[in-house]
Amino acid sequence: MKFDFNLPVNLLFGNGRTAEAGAVVSSWGKKALLVTGGNSARKSGLLDRVQEQLRLSGVESLVFDKVTPNPTTTIAYAGAKKAEENGCDVVVAVGGGSIIDCAKAVAFIVKNDGDIMDYIFGLRSGTQALPLIAIPTTCGTGSEGNGFAVLTNPSNGDKKSLRCNAIIPKTSIIDPECMMTMPKELLASVGYDALCHNMEGYISVIGQPITEMYAREGMRLIAEHLLPIYGGDNAPEHWEAITWASTLGGMVINCAGVGLPHGMEHPASGLKNISHGKGLAALTPVVLEESIPYAPKKYGIIARILGGEDEHTLVSALKNFQKKLGLDITLADLGFDESDVDWMTENCLKVSVGSIATHPMPADREKIREIYIKSLAGI
Amino acid sequence: MKFDFNLPVNLLFGNGRTAEAGAVVSSWGKKALLVTGGNSARKSGLLDRVQEQLRLSGVESLVFDKVTPNPTTTIAYAGAKKAEENGCDVVVAVGGGSIIDCAKAVAFIVKNDGDIMDYIFGLRSGTQALPLIAIPTTCGTGSEGNGFAVLTNPSNGDKKSLRCNAIIPKTSIIDPECMMTMPKELLASVGYDALCHNMEGYISVIGQPITEMYAREGMRLIAEHLLPIYGGDNAPEHWEAITWASTLGGMVINCAGVGLPHGMEHPASGLKNISHGKGLAALTPVVLEESIPYAPKKYGIIARILGGEDEHTLVSALKNFQKKLGLDITLADLGFDESDVDWMTENCLKVSVGSIATHPMPADREKIREIYIKSLAGI
Repeated sequence: MKFDFNLPVNLLFGNGRTAEAGAVVSSWGKKALLVTGGNSARKSGLLDRVQEQLRLSGVESLVFDKVTPNPTTTIAYAGAKKAEENGCDVVVAVGGGSIIDCAKAVAFIVKNDGDIMDYIFGLRSGTQALPLIAIPTTCGTGSEGNGFAVLTNPSNGDKKSLRCNAIIPKTSIIDPECMMTMPKELLASVGYDALCHNMEGYISVIGQPITEMYAREGMRLIAEHLLPIYGGDNAPEHWEAITWASTLGGMVINCAGVGLPHGMEHPASGLKNISHGKGLAALTPVVLEESIPYAPKKYGIIARILGGEDEHTLVSALKNFQKKLGLDITLADLGFDESDVDWMTENCLKVSVGSIATHPMPADREKIREIYIKSLAGI
Repeated sequence: MKFDFNLPVNLLFGNGRTAEAGAVVSSWGKKALLVTGGNSARKSGLLDRVQEQLRLSGVESLVFDKVTPNPTTTIAYAGAKKAEENGCDVVVAVGGGSIIDCAKAVAFIVKNDGDIMDYIFGLRSGTQALPLIAIPTTCGTGSEGNGFAVLTNPSNGDKKSLRCNAIIPKTSIIDPECMMTMPKELLASVGYDALCHNMEGYISVIGQPITEMYAREGMRLIAEHLLPIYGGDNAPEHWEAITWASTLGGMVINCAGVGLPHGMEHPASGLKNISHGKGLAALTPVVLEESIPYAPKKYGIIARILGGEDEHTLVSALKNFQKKLGLDITLADLGFDESDVDWMTENCLKVSVGSIATHPMPADREKIREIYIKSLAGI
């Protein structure tokens, strides 16, 4: 047993805790760039509440609301420019995974010169960033619990994560009540993403004792609490459970990485801007079916958490879970056809070297191609 | 569910990893105060190896080897004086819990004026300390995984912990091979301490999801692996397991605190300089017998981990475990009699306010007195 563990998160978890945003942000800066999307945080009133809390704590704030799903490096540069031009000394993310990831990139770009893709591909490294406070409004990404920021290069579709401890949020205010305005379809998609983080981290070849504990707990919570909420049961314990499971998943992948499902999904959403959770739902059963012989004991544990009996029933248990979430989908359903497979295969080998390496099944060009082809029709 | 989690540990875990000491320490400073005790790390050769690694990495080092069990504030001040007079910019602890705690205090005193007891009793607070690298050689304290440093004021016997994130080690090199020279009696004592950290944190009223996970895992590992080692089976997996369980316990109590067993043991070892683990062994069964009705479900889980059936069999399962470790002892066996009870009771109410508050059973002066009296003869 050999491992390194260094994940300096700072989590404030609980219903109503967004009310602490002013006190938290004011301990890090006097002028905040509030990063958000164009719609949901405004509509729910959360953005206004956060701004008001900042004002009451003496923090000036400017809104940057240009973030879209699968955020591009172009958007991150625009946010960083706004932060720099206005002398912002702290970044506050209010939104889902795309928004927190983009805010991380903004905070990083301000303190690091050159092309961010160089840092993403590991050609350069940075240890500084503006302090970032994250207030998640979806329970999928787990970005509030790690130092990952997934970005897409719009010039070539490369979708890959910047990974460094400098962009771990200084504080994440994780308020399950902020999740409750998610549309049902988004809930299914992000909840499935959180499940994948925990599953992929759990079977990662660089997993370690802490990530195994977190991942088992995260999977258990999602298996137990996601379907009731999806079915309309808004009991607070369900929202708390899946919110916490999502943060756990984020912490898991920071240390254990993701595996082939994420590694193969990034090329798909890099190419066609599909929902990340849906892309995972189309790919994961196929990847797992191939992978089970490479980690049978752990896949058996996952199967049992999902209501199956052993590793041989994992795929059917997972498919059954997906069906109940409206996620029984294929790559073809998402608009892909055979003409996309070559690009995705090559791109996967380019952007997902790490995720391929941490997955228990070796995957070469042929294997990856085969899984994409199979995932067009599904299993 | 509401909690704060912020425990920025940095753990390098694994056999042989003390070889990384030079690289680690040199990233924090150029002149190290090497804090250790008078005997074991020198005898095992570890101290020499660490010094040599520092030298090879260009770090000058001075040894401060005055630390004794239950370290006093006087010793910590002497260490701090040596660090200051010699311009040390990093502190390296090589030893057990007393040594790591004393090194934490040394690192803290250098950066904070005034009486350290004021910081311990919460009258003042500090956010700075010299960087500290911890290399534990016992698997009990868990000090390598937290921001606690237990010190005794020799002028009045007050034994209480300094608690702040500034004294969390910047890196802890947790090398199970360093534990393997412990005498059997010490192993039993520190292993029991680690079990208590996990048990007390698990039933703490301020426990939270992460501490519950860590504590269950810590208890499970100790229940499974401590007796084989005590019986002479030196298989690496046993040493890895109890070493990790100890670090888990340290992380647990940083967030969840300890309970009445630790709260009542500190006055005992503050008064008579007994082994902390033995003091816990004399007190814990009596405390648990009284406390079970206040957290029956969780005590039932602990009982099952220790081989019992439910909460009603917890005390017998724990006593059975202690017997096998040579820890079936009473306060009388440790040299206490009724004349000590008044002082310990009053001192407990003075130094252990926090531990009394986090224990699930309310404990007033009468209850504490009653438990001390009962623990003289044991149950």
